[in-house]
Amino acid sequence: MTHSFTVGDYLLDRLAEIGVRHLFGVPGDYNLAFLDHVMDHEDITWVGNANELNAAYAADGYARVNGVGALLTTYGVGELSAINGIAGSYAEYVPVVHVVGAPSTTTQRAGALVHHSLGDGDFEHFLRAYAEVTVAHAHLAVGTAPAEIDRVLLAAVRERRPGYLLMPTDVAASPATPPRAPLAAPEPELSERVLTDFLGRARELLASAGSATVLADFLVDRFGARQELGELLDAGHFPRTTLALGKGLLDESDPAFVGTYAGAASPKPARQAVEQADVVIAAGVRFTDMATAGFTQDIAPERMIDLQPFEARIGEQRFAPLPMGAALSGLAAVVRELGRDWAREFVPETDVDVPVPAPHLTQRELWASVQEFLRPGDIVVAEQGTSLYGAVGLPLPSGTGFVGQPLWGSIGYTLPAAFGAQVAAPDRRVVLLIGDGSALMTAQEIGSMLRNGLSPIVVLVNNDGYTVERAIHGAEQPYNDIARWNWSLVPAAMGAGERALTLHAGTVEELRRALEMARATTDRLVFLEVTVPVMDKPDLMAAIAEALATANAR
Amino acid sequence: MTHSFTVGDYLLDRLAEIGVRHLFGVPGDYNLAFLDHVMDHEDITWVGNANELNAAYAADGYARVNGVGALLTTYGVGELSAINGIAGSYAEYVPVVHVVGAPSTTTQRAGALVHHSLGDGDFEHFLRAYAEVTVAHAHLAVGTAPAEIDRVLLAAVRERRPGYLLMPTDVAASPATPPRAPLAAPEPELSERVLTDFLGRARELLASAGSATVLADFLVDRFGARQELGELLDAGHFPRTTLALGKGLLDESDPAFVGTYAGAASPKPARQAVEQADVVIAAGVRFTDMATAGFTQDIAPERMIDLQPFEARIGEQRFAPLPMGAALSGLAAVVRELGRDWAREFVPETDVDVPVPAPHLTQRELWASVQEFLRPGDIVVAEQGTSLYGAVGLPLPSGTGFVGQPLWGSIGYTLPAAFGAQVAAPDRRVVLLIGDGSALMTAQEIGSMLRNGLSPIVVLVNNDGYTVERAIHGAEQPYNDIARWNWSLVPAAMGAGERALTLHAGTVEELRRALEMARATTDRLVFLEVTVPVMDKPDLMAAIAEALATANAR
Repeated sequence: MTHSFTVGDYLLDRLAEIGVRHLFGVPGDYNLAFLDHVMDHEDITWVGNANELNAAYAADGYARVNGVGALLTTYGVGELSAINGIAGSYAEYVPVVHVVGAPSTTTQRAGALVHHSLGDGDFEHFLRAYAEVTVAHAHLAVGTAPAEIDRVLLAAVRERRPGYLLMPTDVAASPATPPRAPLAAPEPELSERVLTDFLGRARELLASAGSATVLADFLVDRFGARQELGELLDAGHFPRTTLALGKGLLDESDPAFVGTYAGAASPKPARQAVEQADVVIAAGVRFTDMATAGFTQDIAPERMIDLQPFEARIGEQRFAPLPMGAALSGLAAVVRELGRDWAREFVPETDVDVPVPAPHLTQRELWASVQEFLRPGDIVVAEQGTSLYGAVGLPLPSGTGFVGQPLWGSIGYTLPAAFGAQVAAPDRRVVLLIGDGSALMTAQEIGSMLRNGLSPIVVLVNNDGYTVERAIHGAEQPYNDIARWNWSLVPAAMGAGERALTLHAGTVEELRRALEMARATTDRLVFLEVTVPVMDKPDLMAAIAEALATANAR
Repeated sequence: MTHSFTVGDYLLDRLAEIGVRHLFGVPGDYNLAFLDHVMDHEDITWVGNANELNAAYAADGYARVNGVGALLTTYGVGELSAINGIAGSYAEYVPVVHVVGAPSTTTQRAGALVHHSLGDGDFEHFLRAYAEVTVAHAHLAVGTAPAEIDRVLLAAVRERRPGYLLMPTDVAASPATPPRAPLAAPEPELSERVLTDFLGRARELLASAGSATVLADFLVDRFGARQELGELLDAGHFPRTTLALGKGLLDESDPAFVGTYAGAASPKPARQAVEQADVVIAAGVRFTDMATAGFTQDIAPERMIDLQPFEARIGEQRFAPLPMGAALSGLAAVVRELGRDWAREFVPETDVDVPVPAPHLTQRELWASVQEFLRPGDIVVAEQGTSLYGAVGLPLPSGTGFVGQPLWGSIGYTLPAAFGAQVAAPDRRVVLLIGDGSALMTAQEIGSMLRNGLSPIVVLVNNDGYTVERAIHGAEQPYNDIARWNWSLVPAAMGAGERALTLHAGTVEELRRALEMARATTDRLVFLEVTVPVMDKPDLMAAIAEALATANAR
């Protein structure tokens, strides 16, 4: 098929330019003609999902691995189904571009009573809803569409948050000229004077410090400052930790890694390193309730060098504009001059961690086995609930990716997100850890993984209901029960044929053997159901659940 | 457990008072303590769903059968997942009350960075999104909560549209006094003078008319005027028809029923009755694109008596305020005086409908078999797509209920809606007709049906993808393909055990036998997969698809 170049083509070229290689979504009659252009595009592959929420989750998981993602739905029914996924991308700083195929401008102007509308002639209800959860949005029109597309895409890339494009059928099909110049994201504003002031103050603080720790969090990843963080860590060889949201940012096999910080629920070395340090260099940190077991972090602002995406703070003093990358590089130079080895000077009290042998498989054995199982290069995708809090406690092998959603915390998110992550990185092994209550929410995306010939490892932690909710409130209440599926039949029901290996483990030994087979089976999806006791939970989750129950009763 | 009486209890009492007997939803930590009160309530039963969108669909299906429905989700992640379902309730006039458990007032005032929030301290983002798709909403506070609950519930009941209540944990738990007086919905305003004027003008028109037809649509059902419509039909014995949205409103076994009107795609007698009549009495009608094959209805306004919920029109003349029920009753009296038998005077041209015997099972045989299979009292739930347009063409037995969603048209809706309808009417047989592409979207609710011991008949029309989309655009395009499930394993995978009978039909004879077994099996869920050709579709859908393709290209 040949087409004359259209606004739809322009959009696809720009998406490809910012790094989108796969477009997730669901077809609908307001986007079908545009989809023909997607199919014909050289750099972008269409990936259909079972429903739109799953598509949004998949695009988010893809973006976390790929750097940016995109999603196509139809108007009204499609876009609203996806909005929870986009809100999660907003909360956790993931740039996903949501394109919505809309009724034609003619239909909209006539206020026609068409399907997928509320029937009142107002076609911007859902755009206004999306304005609440996106960093930029546009209702595309003939003539201004290319400029508006550029504006929304640039904002999404700059702010690392979702953008929204409402594209009527006639606008998508209208003629356009290909982009003439690259989509130029202006470099974040930097003032040399501010940087100098900041480094001066930081040097003072560090020069007089007996101890210092780096606490690095997810915004370092999102705002592309991993390399600069690495420079800083190398320059001072700091004891280092991260929060749940930043899991996967550090090389956790490095002896200077002291475990994941979680306020009062931290492992001892992490708590000591952060709370007893004279200076904490916090890079891209947000202290959320679930990452800190209910805001139990204990760090005085005056001993914190706090680096945020576009500014920094030391105590009461604010330094802006100051991009995080520049601040980290500058700090690295300062630290290098100081010539200390902060990690060598840090002597951790150790946790006395006596492994308790269990007669049956419990969460403790499960997470120990998972840790042993993981290999460099794996991407761990851990569902909010026992899976996330089990996995957060594991020191990961070097180069292991980690995807979780501890701030937005939408259960069911990780199953489609694992699909998206595997599409983004077909040569790495995605290991999904998910409970039965969560998997129920979005289970159909197992079918999408199979249809696309992907080979992730899905570990279904079956504990018969919403254990994370039971831990917070209503342990014995029937509202925390769910439908009891026969999970071992699920891959076959979703069309696996020869494309899946289905396993079950109910004992430590079965788990060991199953994980071994899973690792050895690289050409098929592996679905491993692990049965654990209903009320059993990782220690970290118990602490967090208690904090949440208290907050809700306030 | 005993509790002192709380705002949560007050809400539950009021919900029970307007007719809610079941509360659908998903638990989340911001609603768990309130759920204890739900479990303890005498008149309301908790019904857990697999996810929140399904819960919203189920509450909508329940409300269409029960008159009103309700839904409980948690903040952010939960409510946003449900918003597409609530928007559908808004578009199609279904009163569903959506209760959202929210972070405590203390947490909100502090602007705390808690899970399920966007992290910016603004806790009304989602309330504003909901303002776009609800008729009333409130952010409940201690003190004013009971009055606000009353306001939102009354608006939902009066306007037959959804209401939204954001209930912080501390507000739900705060003390309240039980309702002192019944929730008094004011009677809709009626002016005797307006009624007299209206009836005078209607009498003039009807007295001089050679022919007259009643076109009744869904708003008659929604605004509780079925009885008054019956009075009018009896008084004049009119030829009568309905539109897709109003399917189920009329007794279609009555010889005066001329088939379902669908503009240019109507069966001949329906088109003749509506388009050649001197007068059309339109009761509760909305001409939507999919109900009229792209606005092809042909009725001059000056020969239409148009009754809407709170006003009427004859030609250019508007009569308001005039509630539909009063207008219908008044018209019945006028018509009785005229003493005509309009149906006897109507001589329809008949469609020459030669049944084509097919070697294999096609949509034509399928719908003929379904029609033969249906029994008075059944509730047909027909999914947007080939199922709806197949079923809309069938004259239903007397007393058959019908649930579809032809305006909002969210695919996947009917599977949870069928669950809700069956909960509302456990003694009737729900017959769900749904395609594979749609079923994929919300399949997990089969598990909820099984878990609740329900016995609907699920007919899965397997045509290997989105046939409704193929009919509109991209017949051969891979974006209209979906994952190929092994549907016969699905009930077992979702935990059926002995609780389901799973059948398959690929020929006319297999279908006949399967339907016979389904009818005979009343103590279990029946899951019947019917295989039909990919591109085969009901004639009505072909006409509508063509109209939509044209509109999208404008």
